[in-house]
Order: sequence, then C-alpha cells, then structure tokens
Amino acid sequence: MADAPYKLILLRHGESEWNAKNLFTGWVDVNLTEKGEKEAVRGGELMKDAGLLPDVVHTSVQKRAIRTAQLSLESADRHWIPVHRSWRLNERHYGALQGKDKAQIRDEFGEEQFMLWRRSYDTPPPELADDAEFSQAGDPRYAGIPSELRPRTECLKDVVVRMLPYWYDGIIPDLLAGRTVLVAAHGNSLRGLVKHLDGISDEEISGLNIPTGIPLAYELDADFHPVKKGGTYLDPAAAKAAIEAVKNQGRK
Amino acid sequence: MADAPYKLILLRHGESEWNAKNLFTGWVDVNLTEKGEKEAVRGGELMKDAGLLPDVVHTSVQKRAIRTAQLSLESADRHWIPVHRSWRLNERHYGALQGKDKAQIRDEFGEEQFMLWRRSYDTPPPELADDAEFSQAGDPRYAGIPSELRPRTECLKDVVVRMLPYWYDGIIPDLLAGRTVLVAAHGNSLRGLVKHLDGISDEEISGLNIPTGIPLAYELDADFHPVKKGGTYLDPAAAKAAIEAVKNQGRK
Repeated sequence: MADAPYKLILLRHGESEWNAKNLFTGWVDVNLTEKGEKEAVRGGELMKDAGLLPDVVHTSVQKRAIRTAQLSLESADRHWIPVHRSWRLNERHYGALQGKDKAQIRDEFGEEQFMLWRRSYDTPPPELADDAEFSQAGDPRYAGIPSELRPRTECLKDVVVRMLPYWYDGIIPDLLAGRTVLVAAHGNSLRGLVKHLDGISDEEISGLNIPTGIPLAYELDADFHPVKKGGTYLDPAAAKAAIEAVKNQGRK
Repeated sequence: MADAPYKLILLRHGESEWNAKNLFTGWVDVNLTEKGEKEAVRGGELMKDAGLLPDVVHTSVQKRAIRTAQLSLESADRHWIPVHRSWRLNERHYGALQGKDKAQIRDEFGEEQFMLWRRSYDTPPPELADDAEFSQAGDPRYAGIPSELRPRTECLKDVVVRMLPYWYDGIIPDLLAGRTVLVAAHGNSLRGLVKHLDGISDEEISGLNIPTGIPLAYELDADFHPVKKGGTYLDPAAAKAAIEAVKNQGRK
C-alpha cells in the first residue's frame, strides 16, 4: 500500500544456555539450547507460512542471535540472503551482574534493587571491570570499538542510545531500497527499537515484553514510523500467551 | 612478512546429500549430510589450531557452502565476522545432468563422454531448460541475474569467467584492507580460483582435486599472487590421503 512501503520483521532469540540456568548473560556469548534452536526454526516457519520473506538480515555479533538468524532463515528457505552484523544490536551489557545467578542477586540485594537493575529505564548495574571473568575487554570482535565507546554496563536507555545509530544508518537504507528486513536480536535491543518505533515512554517501556521466537512484523510509513502501533506477531495467540506468562511471573 | 602481506583460506564444503547419493548436483541447493557437517566443524578446528583466523568470510549462495562457513566459523569461535555471499562462488552449473545419477549417465553416454563433461576444461553438458525439474530459473535468489548472464550449463572455463569478477571486486578489497579472508565454496569454483592463483594450464587443471573440509591457506604477495604455489593445507597428511584416494578412484 502507498502509505506503508516498508516491511520490518523483529525476531528475538529463544532460550540460551544461561536463560536455562537463570544467569545474567548480557554480552557473554552463550549458545542457544535445543529448545532455543527449535524456537528459531519455528520462527522461520511462521515467516514462510505468512509469505513474509526477508531480503536481508541484520544480527548482533552474539552467537544466540546469529544462530537464530541462521536457523530461522534455513527453515524459511532464505539462508542465502545478505547478512549484516553489528555490536549495536547486542543484548544489554549487564555490567557486574554478568555471569551471576539471578536468584542469588535478588537475595543479596533485595527485590527492589533487583527490579531496578532489571526493569528501570536509566539505572545501570555496577560496571564490569575489564579484568573480570565475564568481561569482553579482550574479545577480538570488539577490537574496533574504542575504549570510550565500549560498554562496561548498560541500562535500557544506554542501549537505545547505542542502538539507534545502527537503525538509522544500517537498517533504514535497506528498507529504503525496498528490502524486507529481518532483525534477529535480543530482548533489550529489540525493546529499545520497539520503544523508538512505537513512541513508548520511558515509564511504560518497563511493562513491554517481546516473546522469543515469534516474528513481530511492522509495516512502516514513508517516515519509517509504524502504520500500526505495536506491529503484528505472526503467531498472535502464542505471543499473547507468552506475554501473559511473563506478567504472571512478575506477580508471584 | 613484507613480501606476503595477504592471507587467504579456501574451504571446500564436505559431503552433501547428493554426493552421498551419487547424483550430479551443480546449482541444486542440497544440504550437507551429517558427515559433511562434521567435516566443516573439523575445518574450523584446524583454522583455530593453526591460529589462522578469518576476519571475513565469502560464500556462494548455496546451502552446503553457507552451512560449511557457519559450522567452521562456530568451531573456530569466529561466528561473528562479516559475511558476504555471491552466486559467482557457486558450484559449476551442471546443465541437463543436474539431478541425474552419475552411474546412469556413465552407462548411457559412455566413459569418454562422461569424463569429458566431468573433467574437460571447455566442454559443458547440454543446457538445462528453464522449465526442467532441477532448473533454478524461478529461484528468487537469482532474480538479480539477467537472463543473458544466468548459467544454464557450465564448463570449468565458464566458472572461471564468472568467478573472477568476484575475486577481483569482492575479495581482493578485503585482502587489501588487511583482512584474513575465508572463501567457503565448492569443488569447481575453488578449482577455478586455484587455477587462476597458481597459473595452472587448461590441460593440467583436470588433474587438480581439492579435498573437502581441509582449509587451504595461501599467502599472497603485493600483486595477489601466491608466495608458494599450491598453498598449504592445514592438515597436509589428510589432504594428501584424500587427493590420492581420488586419483585411485580414477584408475579403477
């Protein structure tokens, strides 16, 4: 349609090894579990069934998003499309919490501080030292990020700030060229992007959860804003159930 | 060293579903077998053990090379490097032989014709009609190749002609930027590249076999020519054994 020339698909990776172990992950480069692999395959099937096929994929530089892209594109028979990667699509850097057990941190620091680190828009956890066990300071994939730019911890606001340049300079040019774009990334980098797209306030974003493995499709207008706020999940019932499940977790 | 500034690694995909069934494959997009997957993983381990780590990967648009790149880079812990794909790195298009049983073709057309199609430099098989079962005429991944450029059959000479523009314009710029380049591709696209690099004659190229799954490393001089003709296999003993095995097949 004339008012919605651009097609964008967001896909959050499924269960990782550290999701399964209930550890804070952030920039630690853990793999998908078998369940996470199946979620990715299913995500590709949903795209194929909807006839919504990506022409190009953008991923973070983290294995769980990279493999989610690969597995979903294979099951959609689009494994051959161009691939772009950027650290700007990475998960939120979880600072000194990386590698820590979530339950232990909750016990140690209390529910309020725990939820502040997890859900507040602008309160980052303490920084992770460059010589700490789960630091990425020596990782060659980040060698091109000068020290002043490389995160040592992040709140969601920090993620939005470092993600948006890639949205503008890396992804929009593909949309402009008429390509259907798949972004395979993480809970928080995608929350940051959805916050921007849907104009969600700093307060309301804490209530937004993006389910894993279910492609979220947006049609964008000529100014790259959503025609329909919130987009459309390719499996709406499963998405609704997943979002409800997360809400109920919060209530227990 | 000053005379060999550039590092190139060639990796031929391992066993595919149709290798295992003894069918001519060409541009038909079959997957790796489990054996082929293991070969790819082993290829990555060899790169890692040699400390020869790619900064960028170039693949064909065919699944068996794409997955070989993915699996080898994962086992080398380089899954996050930039990826580029081109149909110019595809396997030779096998024309009307695509999808046919090799033994049947040998019986039907005789040993001489069979070997001419398989090994001569400039005798392509008959063309594959666009409406034939194993044609790629309607495949969206080739929609950007105008009819006059899209192969319907190829001899090795044709492969060299269509591959070289990508060597010059797609790969050399990465070498020039100082990147160690991995090319994950196919028996004949890599034979074509090695023919070019090593200056092998049209007659002698028929005797050259590149083993599957064993990275072949080249150091290139300032003019992008090999410092050592033939390069260096990262597992020389396995490469030698594989090459001998192919020679002995030819003798039976």
